[in-house]
Amino acid sequence: MVSQLFSRHADRLQQAKDACATRAYFSAFDESPSPRVYGESAAADGKAAFDAWRDRAFPVGTPGSDGTVATERSPYGFDLGTTYPRAGDLDALLGAAGAGMKAWRDAGPDARVGVCLEILDRLHRRIFELANAVQHTSGQAFVMAFQAGGAHALDRALEALAYAHTEMTRVPATALWEKPARGEPLRMEKTFTVVPRGIALVIGCNTFPTWNSWPGLFASLVTGNPVVVKPHPQAVLPLAITVQVCQEVLAEEGFDVDLVTLAAEDPADRLAARLALDPRVRLIDFTGGNAFGDWLEENARQAIVFTEKAGVNTVVVDSTSSFQAMCQNLAFSFSLYSGQMCTAPQNVYLPADGIDTDEGRKTPGEVAAGIEAALGGLLGEDSRAVELLGGVVNDGVLDRPTLIGLSASDADVYESECFGPVAYLISTGGTDESIDLFRDTVQRRGAMTAAVYSTSDEVVGHMREAALDAGVALSENLLGGVFVNQSAAYSDFHGTGANPAANASYTDGAYVASRFRVVQSRRHV
Amino acid sequence: MVSQLFSRHADRLQQAKDACATRAYFSAFDESPSPRVYGESAAADGKAAFDAWRDRAFPVGTPGSDGTVATERSPYGFDLGTTYPRAGDLDALLGAAGAGMKAWRDAGPDARVGVCLEILDRLHRRIFELANAVQHTSGQAFVMAFQAGGAHALDRALEALAYAHTEMTRVPATALWEKPARGEPLRMEKTFTVVPRGIALVIGCNTFPTWNSWPGLFASLVTGNPVVVKPHPQAVLPLAITVQVCQEVLAEEGFDVDLVTLAAEDPADRLAARLALDPRVRLIDFTGGNAFGDWLEENARQAIVFTEKAGVNTVVVDSTSSFQAMCQNLAFSFSLYSGQMCTAPQNVYLPADGIDTDEGRKTPGEVAAGIEAALGGLLGEDSRAVELLGGVVNDGVLDRPTLIGLSASDADVYESECFGPVAYLISTGGTDESIDLFRDTVQRRGAMTAAVYSTSDEVVGHMREAALDAGVALSENLLGGVFVNQSAAYSDFHGTGANPAANASYTDGAYVASRFRVVQSRRHV
Repeated sequence: MVSQLFSRHADRLQQAKDACATRAYFSAFDESPSPRVYGESAAADGKAAFDAWRDRAFPVGTPGSDGTVATERSPYGFDLGTTYPRAGDLDALLGAAGAGMKAWRDAGPDARVGVCLEILDRLHRRIFELANAVQHTSGQAFVMAFQAGGAHALDRALEALAYAHTEMTRVPATALWEKPARGEPLRMEKTFTVVPRGIALVIGCNTFPTWNSWPGLFASLVTGNPVVVKPHPQAVLPLAITVQVCQEVLAEEGFDVDLVTLAAEDPADRLAARLALDPRVRLIDFTGGNAFGDWLEENARQAIVFTEKAGVNTVVVDSTSSFQAMCQNLAFSFSLYSGQMCTAPQNVYLPADGIDTDEGRKTPGEVAAGIEAALGGLLGEDSRAVELLGGVVNDGVLDRPTLIGLSASDADVYESECFGPVAYLISTGGTDESIDLFRDTVQRRGAMTAAVYSTSDEVVGHMREAALDAGVALSENLLGGVFVNQSAAYSDFHGTGANPAANASYTDGAYVASRFRVVQSRRHV
Repeated sequence: MVSQLFSRHADRLQQAKDACATRAYFSAFDESPSPRVYGESAAADGKAAFDAWRDRAFPVGTPGSDGTVATERSPYGFDLGTTYPRAGDLDALLGAAGAGMKAWRDAGPDARVGVCLEILDRLHRRIFELANAVQHTSGQAFVMAFQAGGAHALDRALEALAYAHTEMTRVPATALWEKPARGEPLRMEKTFTVVPRGIALVIGCNTFPTWNSWPGLFASLVTGNPVVVKPHPQAVLPLAITVQVCQEVLAEEGFDVDLVTLAAEDPADRLAARLALDPRVRLIDFTGGNAFGDWLEENARQAIVFTEKAGVNTVVVDSTSSFQAMCQNLAFSFSLYSGQMCTAPQNVYLPADGIDTDEGRKTPGEVAAGIEAALGGLLGEDSRAVELLGGVVNDGVLDRPTLIGLSASDADVYESECFGPVAYLISTGGTDESIDLFRDTVQRRGAMTAAVYSTSDEVVGHMREAALDAGVALSENLLGGVFVNQSAAYSDFHGTGANPAANASYTDGAYVASRFRVVQSRRHV
């Protein structure tokens, strides 16, 4: 039964592995919500499935729960009213989580990968429902919720499974070792077993409840670890559906459903911090603010902690072959989801004496005007604007993109991340200073992304060098349909782990290799 | 020039990679010190090369050094008298270490692997000199020093290089990404660069100065990180020779010699602790006692810390098909290098009412007598005994193996590691209790190795299960020329990282994957 699941999805797994190796384009889950792809009734069915969760108890059990919580309000203006068990007795929760670990371990890598691939397939079947859940918790516009919260999140999860399967199967299950010796060789048979580290904790975020949680969830689960999913109180439903699907497949395959549990909370419960320090929790995946991420890295000493935090994403503008296209590309990047992406650009460094463009020399003021004009084109019409901006997750995030002009001496302002639709245009003494400021700020404050606009190969080369020094991914001269805030599964790494914005990357070997251990036995034959 | 080194040693690298994947027997460096292998003059030349270092200054520079230290005394009864620069100004040391990092990074994985393979080749040419240096610092007998400190250490280093090369080249240097779109596809060229984490610190131990230091040294160096080598004050020379060879090859290839530096100290300097907390130190490899290893894991928060500490290595004796062979195998394991191996067995659990053997039922007292008789055979003749026992590294280690009989209730004694030639024979209520005690003790106190003797498949199965639960490698019914304290490079993992005795393993993916990061850039084409 279990190996059937692996066989059923083996082609998809192999395609994902191949893409991770070549870094060529691949997607296993269509990102278009078109009826031509998903069928005429898919959108309405998904909406209805989402609506059905409103104002009722979500049917998931949490061991040791104590009452319920209902903490979600759509940024589009209504309370979800869905109630979830409130995590209470952590001993009961973690005890139940660990109960099925041994059987899950003993099933072996292929069986676990098969189960997880089947879970992704079932989640894909509910992609419209998930998109509505993501939209009405994160505030993303529907198409973005469908893509980032659905198809792309599934791709990132599959990517994590591909890496984990590669890693778990680098060592054979059994081996024959034969050492030449005087007379008969020494012969031993060896057995190698992948063993889990212990219980994994996944701490979800408000803005990308699936995209940022699934890689860690599936990387930990597939390597044998039970996973406790602690969603952000304002974005529970997408992960409740996730847990439901995980439990459904686990149950069908004869595994303990509590291998994946939902730990919902009232915001005052500080549940993540309490769980993170429990000695039974050995893996933690966190996406969110730097303060709690840094706290986890400092304090959860018994666990391996993977963090995706935030930083000061930077654009160095030196010159461009298309002023219009540059302004449009930047305007889109600033305004997409109202800048509430950890990958959204914030600081734009450009020379005070202007940049060369196909439309002649442009002063910083003219660059600002160009970007503002592009924003106007993108956002001038409300119905189109809402598709791009989405809703804002909390009152601290402004409702319109803002461009603020600064000079290089205003470091106290631009060296901190300002979450949301704010961009700083920072005048410098020239591109050399821009690049130095970029390198220095990212080394100290971190960044998830960086970009450069220049028609000079030499300047791009210097910027590429600075990006290596700063440990941040660089996008060069984006003038078309690719934006600096986007990273493509299987090809682009999200985060590098090489600067303070994140200590991990989706997905590389380091993201999966330490989630399990290999234990061997040996005997003469 | 650099790529020539990679080409020159490419076959050796590929053989090592193949062995790591199959876990079949492989060795790239002959473990026999025979003149038929290494030539008639090799032994005398190596001894002379070692003698030449006595009572003189070792020709290696340490940036920021302050005077010299001479801290080594051979366990065979003489001071080495070799002086080394004493590390002084850590800013100067770490500044110099970091100076060559960028050029080393830019050389790329193949060039770095080529340099490191050449270093191993040069170290191999000095294997007799190294064996003498290991013998007269660790106290190992000469043949053991030649094997464990020479050939096997080289194999473990090559294993680390093989894993690191595989890991660094999982992502191509460049890739073409082409996403279908309306009209023209989106096309991007992507560049992926392996970047180092920062400065690496290797903290050597007294007993295995090369075998336990080289895997971390080469894993960090080959992934782009400068390495500061902090030897144990009583075992400096083997690592001074190592640093000398590293610097020789680095210089020939045009790299900064301070990419590998020696940081010798007076024992009162507490140099390791000071270096370990420096924010520039991002990787730490440590072998030694639990107290300092645990301290590093707790306190060196800015670094990734790999530790090989100690635990309570356990043998469960249930029954055997050859009482004599079992006693001989155990006696050898207890006495090899006077039990000063982190893999030496300590606790032997056996039923109080005796075990079934080919010689009939044996009480615990008869088992003890059997082991003692085997020890007498091994150690009765002094000249043979010294070849097995070697010298002891400090006065705290006794000079003869001791067997101590205990019962299961003496946990306060047998749950702590007693370094050196002491074994506890612990009578239990039966094999089930033995296995439970084994599982429980290892989960709480850690272990590097475990062994079982039983003629029952069911008992072996239970023990195998307990070893998986406890996260320790298991040797089953060793009756011949393989001993529980030995692990073979490319095939056996040394340490699991799954119990408190070590948080890392020689060598798995987790041992290398987090020592570097991948930073990408992308552009339309």
